Amino acid sequence: MNAKAFQDYYPPELSYCYGCGRLNEHGHRISSHWDGGEAVAFFVPKPYHTAIPGYVYGGLLASLIDCHGTGTAAAAAYRAENREMGTKPPLRFVTASLKVDYLKPTPLGVRLEIRGQVKKISGRKVVVAVTISAAGYVCVRGEVLAVQMPASMMPAAGTGEGY
Amino acid sequence: MNAKAFQDYYPPELSYCYGCGRLNEHGHRISSHWDGGEAVAFFVPKPYHTAIPGYVYGGLLASLIDCHGTGTAAAAAYRAENREMGTKPPLRFVTASLKVDYLKPTPLGVRLEIRGQVKKISGRKVVVAVTISAAGYVCVRGEVLAVQMPASMMPAAGTGEGY
Repeated sequence: MNAKAFQDYYPPELSYCYGCGRLNEHGHRISSHWDGGEAVAFFVPKPYHTAIPGYVYGGLLASLIDCHGTGTAAAAAYRAENREMGTKPPLRFVTASLKVDYLKPTPLGVRLEIRGQVKKISGRKVVVAVTISAAGYVCVRGEVLAVQMPASMMPAAGTGEGY
Repeated sequence: MNAKAFQDYYPPELSYCYGCGRLNEHGHRISSHWDGGEAVAFFVPKPYHTAIPGYVYGGLLASLIDCHGTGTAAAAAYRAENREMGTKPPLRFVTASLKVDYLKPTPLGVRLEIRGQVKKISGRKVVVAVTISAAGYVCVRGEVLAVQMPASMMPAAGTGEGY
């Protein structure tokens, strides 16, 4: 795996996301990498990320799918254009819709493996299928429809400092 | 509105959820009430709950829909049985699936209004449609398929203390 995560290539003004921004000190700082044709991230929930005791909170699982999905969409869009991540113009994606199926309760206290597979790239849209596994079995399955952020939404350099 | 929220009726061992548990001091502590035929909750995101600067992080929005949805499902199940919330046996719901459509970017810095409408009650399943509005317009639309928690998943009294 490349030592640099997808999110490490985001410009500073796009690095404050609570889910995956490396500059958000309160956030989850999800970090996604290519692993062959799939994108993978790992995350260890905190003890307080609980739903019913012993199991992970569903909202966190949805968040992991969301941020890993948009990160994977961005990386896939660069790949599709044969460009290195971080080259200009930047390709960043926002979530248009998110679907999450909770197949089994996800145990707390173990490292979660989040895997994304690009299902479709069509114009400005990318569909990413995501699974979350714990202790070797898939607990959650999701799908993210990510849309390339329009230039009008792209924040100016320096925006977001101090949130 | 009843001063007591749906979540205030949950027994202590089911009150540690990061999204809506009144005993989770790190969590969002979502608090849902009936407002006529709909269930309503309000939430003010923290400045660090950001996605791109100025807008709310999608994972938080998914979490609000999730927890307000399962709370509404529980309250609706009691209503359907003409029972007061908090009477035994407890009716608690977990999320089987969650769908979120992000219609517009949700602005940070304002109070969000989360509204749930019960679409269907069928056996142990309840479908709740949820909207999130900011500054008077709907930014996010979601649907939660909630399933009554089986007795085997119900934690024993005292479980979860200290997480």
